[in-house]
Parts: sequence; C-alpha cells; structure tokens
Amino acid sequence: LKGIPEYRLARKSHRPEGSVICIGDTEIGGKELLMIAGPCAVETEEQLFAIAQKVSDLGIKFLRGGAYKPRTSPYKFQGLQEPGLKLLSNVSKEFNLNIVTEVMDISLLDVVYPHTDIIQIGARNMKNYHLLRALGETDKPILLKRGMDATIEEWLLAAEYILLGGNEQVILCERGIRTFDNSNRNTLDLAGVALVKQLTHLPVIVDPSQATGNRNLIEATSLASIAVGGDGLMIEVHNNPEDALSDGPQSMYLKQFERMLPSLQNMATASNRIIDLKTAIQPVQVQEIH
Amino acid sequence: LKGIPEYRLARKSHRPEGSVICIGDTEIGGKELLMIAGPCAVETEEQLFAIAQKVSDLGIKFLRGGAYKPRTSPYKFQGLQEPGLKLLSNVSKEFNLNIVTEVMDISLLDVVYPHTDIIQIGARNMKNYHLLRALGETDKPILLKRGMDATIEEWLLAAEYILLGGNEQVILCERGIRTFDNSNRNTLDLAGVALVKQLTHLPVIVDPSQATGNRNLIEATSLASIAVGGDGLMIEVHNNPEDALSDGPQSMYLKQFERMLPSLQNMATASNRIIDLKTAIQPVQVQEIH
Amino acid sequence: LKGIPEYRLARKSHRPEGSVICIGDTEIGGKELLMIAGPCAVETEEQLFAIAQKVSDLGIKFLRGGAYKPRTSPYKFQGLQEPGLKLLSNVSKEFNLNIVTEVMDISLLDVVYPHTDIIQIGARNMKNYHLLRALGETDKPILLKRGMDATIEEWLLAAEYILLGGNEQVILCERGIRTFDNSNRNTLDLAGVALVKQLTHLPVIVDPSQATGNRNLIEATSLASIAVGGDGLMIEVHNNPEDALSDGPQSMYLKQFERMLPSLQNMATASNRIIDLKTAIQPVQVQEIH
Amino acid sequence: LKGIPEYRLARKSHRPEGSVICIGDTEIGGKELLMIAGPCAVETEEQLFAIAQKVSDLGIKFLRGGAYKPRTSPYKFQGLQEPGLKLLSNVSKEFNLNIVTEVMDISLLDVVYPHTDIIQIGARNMKNYHLLRALGETDKPILLKRGMDATIEEWLLAAEYILLGGNEQVILCERGIRTFDNSNRNTLDLAGVALVKQLTHLPVIVDPSQATGNRNLIEATSLASIAVGGDGLMIEVHNNPEDALSDGPQSMYLKQFERMLPSLQNMATASNRIIDLKTAIQPVQVQEIH
Repeated sequence: LKGIPEYRLARKSHRPEGSVICIGDTEIGGKELLMIAGPCAVETEEQLFAIAQKVSDLGIKFLRGGAYKPRTSPYKFQGLQEPGLKLLSNVSKEFNLNIVTEVMDISLLDVVYPHTDIIQIGARNMKNYHLLRALGETDKPILLKRGMDATIEEWLLAAEYILLGGNEQVILCERGIRTFDNSNRNTLDLAGVALVKQLTHLPVIVDPSQATGNRNLIEATSLASIAVGGDGLMIEVHNNPEDALSDGPQSMYLKQFERMLPSLQNMATASNRIIDLKTAIQPVQVQEIH
Repeated sequence: LKGIPEYRLARKSHRPEGSVICIGDTEIGGKELLMIAGPCAVETEEQLFAIAQKVSDLGIKFLRGGAYKPRTSPYKFQGLQEPGLKLLSNVSKEFNLNIVTEVMDISLLDVVYPHTDIIQIGARNMKNYHLLRALGETDKPILLKRGMDATIEEWLLAAEYILLGGNEQVILCERGIRTFDNSNRNTLDLAGVALVKQLTHLPVIVDPSQATGNRNLIEATSLASIAVGGDGLMIEVHNNPEDALSDGPQSMYLKQFERMLPSLQNMATASNRIIDLKTAIQPVQVQEIH
Repeated sequence: LKGIPEYRLARKSHRPEGSVICIGDTEIGGKELLMIAGPCAVETEEQLFAIAQKVSDLGIKFLRGGAYKPRTSPYKFQGLQEPGLKLLSNVSKEFNLNIVTEVMDISLLDVVYPHTDIIQIGARNMKNYHLLRALGETDKPILLKRGMDATIEEWLLAAEYILLGGNEQVILCERGIRTFDNSNRNTLDLAGVALVKQLTHLPVIVDPSQATGNRNLIEATSLASIAVGGDGLMIEVHNNPEDALSDGPQSMYLKQFERMLPSLQNMATASNRIIDLKTAIQPVQVQEIH
Repeated sequence: LKGIPEYRLARKSHRPEGSVICIGDTEIGGKELLMIAGPCAVETEEQLFAIAQKVSDLGIKFLRGGAYKPRTSPYKFQGLQEPGLKLLSNVSKEFNLNIVTEVMDISLLDVVYPHTDIIQIGARNMKNYHLLRALGETDKPILLKRGMDATIEEWLLAAEYILLGGNEQVILCERGIRTFDNSNRNTLDLAGVALVKQLTHLPVIVDPSQATGNRNLIEATSLASIAVGGDGLMIEVHNNPEDALSDGPQSMYLKQFERMLPSLQNMATASNRIIDLKTAIQPVQVQEIH
C-alpha cells in the first residue's frame, strides 16, 4: 500500500478505538467473537431445521444459509430462492437465530431484506459498485467478503463505497484468494487479516470453509484465525454433507463441529476473547469421523 | 479442463463452423476483424466528438466509451452516466458509428439499451450471474470480458448463462488476468485465446489496452492478438491522454493509433483476415511521439 | 493433490507418529517448538555479537544468520561469505547457540558444513535437485524452505529427494508464496501448513518475517502459526534494523522481539506445546516502538 | 518497474542498437529468427537420430535435447546424463547441428561445456546466482529461461549477473509463468516479451511448448510470438510423443512440425524477419493427425 490510501472512512485513524456492530446482545468487533454456522445453501425444510436445531443447541446465535447461490455453472443448483428465504425466517423464529444470507443483486435487496439480520455480499460481488452503493443506504449490517482477486486496498475501498452511503455497519470477511496453488480450494490470507486489522477499524472475520474447501482443515485454520486477531468465524456445517447440493467436501459434520467448539473456546480465552455459547459445551468424546 | 466441460451451448462441437454475429455489414467471427476504438470513458462532448471524428475518418466502425465506469475508489470519476449515453447516441448518428458501452448492473440495462449496439460486460461482472441471465433475454450482442480471476472454463460457463437465455450473440474479450507480475497492468493471456478458440465457436477479441496498461505496448500486442487467431481488437484512444479522467497511460494518441493501422492490416492479410477500413489508410510519416 | 501422491518417504503413513529431529536437547517435531531468531545476514562482528547476546539471554537456542545471501540484484550486499561463517562459529561457542545458515550451492556445502547445525535451503533452491540430492548424503538436519512458486506436492517431492538419499532429518519451512497481492511481501499460506501437516510426518515451521516483510505483523502471524499447528518459528531480529544491509523492514527490534515472547509462550501452552526459554521471560512493560 | 531499474548492462540504453549473438552463420537478435527444435530429453540413440535427421532435413540449425533433466519427482526419468551428452555430440557432427542443452548445476558446467553450443539455464535455475556468476565466466552463449515466478525486472537482473561476469552472449527465453489458471500448463506472457524487448538490448525468444503444455497450441502461439517481436522459437518435437519419457503431450509430431513451418515463414516475412531453412519447405498436404 504505497502512498496515502484512498479510503478515508474505513481507515483505522477514522475510529482508532475500533467499530463495534451490535446485533441483539452480540457486539461484533468487541471482545466476543462472532460465530456463524450453517449450510452453504438452504436445500429443504428438513435439512435447514436439522442444522438450525443443532446450531441453536450449541449456543451459536447466527445461522448462515444461501437462498440465492452464485454458481459457476448455470446447470448447478441455484438455490431455493424465495421459498428458501421463508425457511430462513421460519427457523429464525423457531430457534431465535440471527440470519446471515447473501444478496446477489440490487434487484434482490428488497426481497432478501426482511429475512436476514446480516446481508452477506459474496466474493464475486465485492467489486459490484452499484450494489455496494445500494448497501450504503440500508440500515442492516453488511458482511463484505473479500474478492478472490482483490488486494487489501481494493477490499477496503469496497467497504468505503458502503460507508460513504451512510451505513457504518460493515464486517469484513476473508475467505481465501486465488493463487497458483490449488492444493487448497483458495489460499487463506491470514497475514492479510493481521494487516487489514491494522489498517481499518472495521471488524474482520474469517471463512475457513470457502478458503480451504476441506472440512478436515477447518479446526486448525479456525484456531489460527482467532490467534491472528480475527473477530469471528463463518463455518459451513451440514447434517448430511455427502448429499449436500453444494460445497459438501468443505461442510463439517454436525458432530465434528460440536467436537471442535471447546478448542475454539480455549483459543479464544488464550487470545483474550470470548466465544459466548450461552450453554456450556461438553467436550465430546473423540471418535474418528473420517 | 479435466473431464467433460460443463458448457454445452458454448462448446465448439455445438456449432463447429463457428458463430458469426452480424452488426450492420460487419460479420464478427467472420474473415473481417472487429475493430473497436475509443476512449475509456466519455468525458465531454468536445472530447467524444474529437475522438469519434478521427475514428470515423480512419474507417473504424465501432466506437467504445464508458458512460458508467466501475472504479476501485468511490472518490474517482464514475462516468457521466445518462448524459454520457446521450453523447454516445449523438456521435453514433453524426458519424454513423456503432456504439460499444458497458452495462454495470441489471437496473441500468433498460437505460443503456437504446444507446448501444454492443452491450459490454466488464471483467468485474463476468461472474454476476443475475446480470448474465438478464442479458440472455436481450436481443443485442454482448461483449463478455474475461474476469481477472477467471479460468477459461469459468469464462465459457459465464457465456453459457447468456446463451441459455436465448441470446446467441456473445463475443468473448480477453483483457488480461491478474498474476504476481505487475510489470504490465495485467497478464495478457494470448495462449488462452488460442485455447478458447479451440473450445468454443464464439468469436474472441482482445483488449490490449486493459491488459498492458501501456500505450507503447499496444502495437506489438495487437499484432500478436491477430496472429494468435483473435477475431478483433478493442483499443483505447484519446485526443488528450495526459488529461484523461481514467486510464490515460494506456490510451493511445490518435496519431499513434493511425500510424499503427497499416501494420495491423498487413498482419491481418498475413493471417488470412481483413481489417476493413473502407477508406485507404496512408502510412503516416513516422515521428517520435514519446 | 489428485490421485496417489508421488512422495513415499515423506508421506504421513510412512511414519504416522511423526518425525522428531534431535539437536542438543531440542526435539524438533516434538512438544517443544523450534525457535530460531537472528539477523537476515551476518554483517559485522559487533552486529552479530549484539544480536547473539540478546537471543541467548532470552533463552533462544538457535541463531539464524546468512553468510551467503541470494540477492535479486548483483549490486546488492551478497553476504560476508567465509568470514561470516567464522563469526557464526565464534558466537556459537561464545553463547552456546546452535547455528542455522544457508547453503546456496553444492560447491559451498563443504565450506558451510562445519559452521552450521542446521543447513538452510532457501526458497529459490527448493527445486535445485542436484543440491537436494547432495543434501541427502549429509548427516546434518536440513531446513527446506518452500519455493515461492511451489505447490504443496512439489515441496514434499523436494523433501523426498533428500530423504531418498538417506538423510531423514528434514524440517519444512513455510515462508509465503507469490501471489497477485503484494500488500504483504508474500502470501503466508497457513492453511497450507495445516494441510502439509496432514500429508507428511516431517516437522513444519514458519518464517513470518519473509512472508510478511513487515515487523509489525510478526506477532500476530507467529501466534497464528503456533495455533495452526506449526512446529516452530524462524524470526528475523536485528540490533539496528534501520541500518540493516538487507531486510530491515521485516527485522524486529530486539526489544520488540523480547516483548512478544510471553504471548508466544502463552499461545504455545494453549496449543499444548512448549516454548522452552530455560530462563523465565519477564513480561516487558509495553511502550510503543513504532 | 518503478524508479530506476537496477540492471545497467542489460538495459536497452546500454546498447540501443540491440545485441547480436553469432553462432556459425546465424545472427541471433538480427533479422533472422533463431529456430530451435528437438526433444525434451535425449532418450535413446534411435530417438535422437530420428529427430535430428528430420530437424536437419527441414533446415533447422539448432537441436535442443536435455541430457540432465530437472524433474519434480525423484522417481521420474532424470535424463541419460553423460551418455546423453555424447549422443548430442554425435548428432551434432552427423547432421551439422548446433546443440542447445541444459546445465543444472555448476558442477556440471565443465561436463556439459564441450557438448553444447548454447548453454540452457532452466526456469528453476533463473535465481541460482552462483550458477549465473559461473556462466559469466564462460565464453559460450547462454539461453536464460524466465523463472515461473520471476518478474520482468528479476529476469533482467539475472541476466545482469551473467553480463557482469563478462559474458555478453545472453539470450532470454520466455516460457510461461505460473498463475491461478492451469487451463494451459503455464501462462505465456507475450506482452511481457513486448515489454522486455523495450527494456533490454538482449535477444528474446519464446518456448511455446513449456508455456502451453499442449502441442495443438504451438502453431498459434508461435505465430503470435513472432508477431509480438520475439527473436526466435524453441519448440519440442518428438518422433513418437506418445512414448516420450517426459513432456509427451506438448511435443509436436515431426509431420505436424513440418506442416507448420511454411506458416511461420509467412509470418516472419510479414514481420520483416526471416526464418532461414536453407532448403525450401514444401507446404505439406494437410491431413488430420489424431
């Protein structure tokens, strides 16, 4: 980042104490880590309720789930769309969960708005400046994923588009960048998280599921995400990953996710943070699940 | 591209003879090369008319110019917007030029539609699937730029979204990908052009201006683009690059552009193609212009 | 990593319990984390002794320092060479430190051998297969840095060259890969560390200094490196970074390094690891040192 | 390339008229294009003679062939080594061909020297500075391939190491860089060739075989390499690519190579260059090969 950065409102010096975004009793960017879990996509009522039940039982307060899915191929499952949104609202009420779901296009903003608590902007849309401007005029928090080809400065300038419109509730989300090495699905840029935390006052969370594409790497990378100073995690879980309509290999088994939580809590403590699961998590007896 | 590609309508075998898209008397994908020139952005009436006059005098039949500009920074010039579209329509009538301009968002499709002959989709929007679907329902040709982080297969799948909607008039445009080396603005992938020409029946043109970011590399890379089998070129020219509101360093001087045309025509002939400039271009006496 | 990997000796299943490499009373790959600190290059006797004194006082048992430096430009400082090696041996005796220094070429192997305890192979030499074969015939531990353009599989195959020669003492070192984003010097691939730990039995350490190029990011990335499961750290420190002949901006101040150690120890404990500094480190009173 | 480049001897202004390197009656960097063809590796006497016979019959004056092969896996064919060198010398005499073969390590320089006319330095060794320095002291021309992760400036600085030693006969060779897109084996950087030709006086040739990894893309990319201003081509050909011990898919059939030559000559003429094949090439009747 040579010279003076072009972002002003997103800059650390604009709010040196850091931004805190409140949803219910969760203070995102505060001491508590934002924990979001759920399926890549809403698939069926049965699937969503099974996952939401477990997530809620574990004390997680934010459920992710895509109703509209950006897919590389037009022949792949594109999401349940409006019926998916309704299912999200239903589980939100049923289990008292906050919803995080994606808006893919300005034309869908009004449709999605009533059904979500955090508006997710996917990596492919980080440079969709018309959409970013429209988000600047909403009053809901925005989860702004980093583009696969975005530099740190471009990411902060994307946030600046939203901030400039008057919406100060921007949460950044690192989810891996595209590099020559496809040993993992993307290359998780945790040093980038350390850097962006120094450059901005906005909260920064990490999505290790998209980054690695591999459920067996989620625990190690989640621990590292907390240790590096990330303000939270967004993790894909599924009641039946083998039959998931998208992103199965990176979706954790519900048991596997549960088993991981105590070590994340332990890491949060070591990092002077908190994972508030309300209910105490009992260490699950370890058995191998592939 | 392992296994069977997921694109079907975009696949070479779907139309082995190749697609030809007709605009006026230009057959894009035929023997004639598509030549598009113009400024990055429409800035003023004076600027646009000066450039259009020259482009038209040279026999070029397609004028590019952005009225809506996707800019990394919200503080940079964002385009003249609707007044810019009107200027494009005016020069189109005045000089009998076909217009190529960008649609950044579905919400702008109806606004831009009457003012353009080819709808340009920028690199940042190649994975904007809602927009691609909407383009499938228009009846105008689409210029689909390759995303900076898009593989060849992802690019063809983006075309597939449009084709699947019923619009068969898709022109692909290589404009450089993002790599570790920023000696040039992007890395022009001409071997990718050779590959994609074997995989698809769609015409493929090249934008060396965006790829190199350097007006002094346009001639060499344009020659190579023709030699590799590209079906045309889109080149940024400006009557006053030093004062351009965007992309000045990659905009050719009008004289420089004129001086280059005979060598491009020569290369077209050697490649069994034609650059139809209607009027004969006289080799310009060479003098150094930086 | 598709299909069956080509490495056999480096493979996890070859030694599922993991490799432990013993140097003195340090068990690399065991519960204790390998801690290496020192300057990028040996510059003067005064410099090396000042750094070694501090490193030794802190209880660090491994000193790094390049006597031969691979430099992009032939006009830059190339290292003190043989006199540098002698200085390393001197401080080794004086402070009872193990030495880690680089061999750039087979022809230097005999020269460097008596002066080092771990033979470092730089990123540029990871694919120097003649050198790797020669290392297979030595009896000293090898620190094999990942190439800037190396996939995980290529890195393990480089280790395989050494193992195949009979030298089982290979320590892998992640130091960042080259990507489009140069916000940091390289892109530290900690998810790659998590993956490679699952694929191999060899110890894997992290060099956050080379990866970030920024001393202010070393603490956060070191914590993350421990959390992700890394087996140690190699960190550049300097008694006077402003005047360093190479890599000044990424070299930590000695005070800054000292101040960081308690948090690393805390993180090690949280990760069920140990940083053995022999002497108790007293938390340094925090004052800003830019 | 910001600021003043660090290379001096490699710089265009050091010899604005361009460097010409003479081998026999070939002036590399002059009007004539350097044409090098041959197998990836020397495999058997029969193979090498069959290929050399054909290459010689076509009027090509430079034969490539590796006797020492840098291979990612230690379990793959590593080259015939000294016997391979002797075979190269034999065909050189038999067919009056100049030899181009790789030196992988300083220790092999004396071994390879008497058997080659151009010393090839592979991409993996572009940053092997000890080797580069040694090459500066030889009196044979060096073919310096660009590293897969090397910027243009790093490539020129590698040349500078050789020039600084007193050897002015450096030929640069672009062979593709490593990027996120593996549709092709590497990403051929022809705009980089255009740029480097402006920055240096050294001749620059292109290896489309390594770049694309696909014999069916060699013709198009070779044409583009000539058009962009490259000073020659290095192309892999094999008498039996299906059974090649390395790089089969990118090796052209001898017939396919022959059939391509007239179009390359035509392109050379259009680019004001010459491909001197001594004997007239008769256009081969086109029939599909596989």
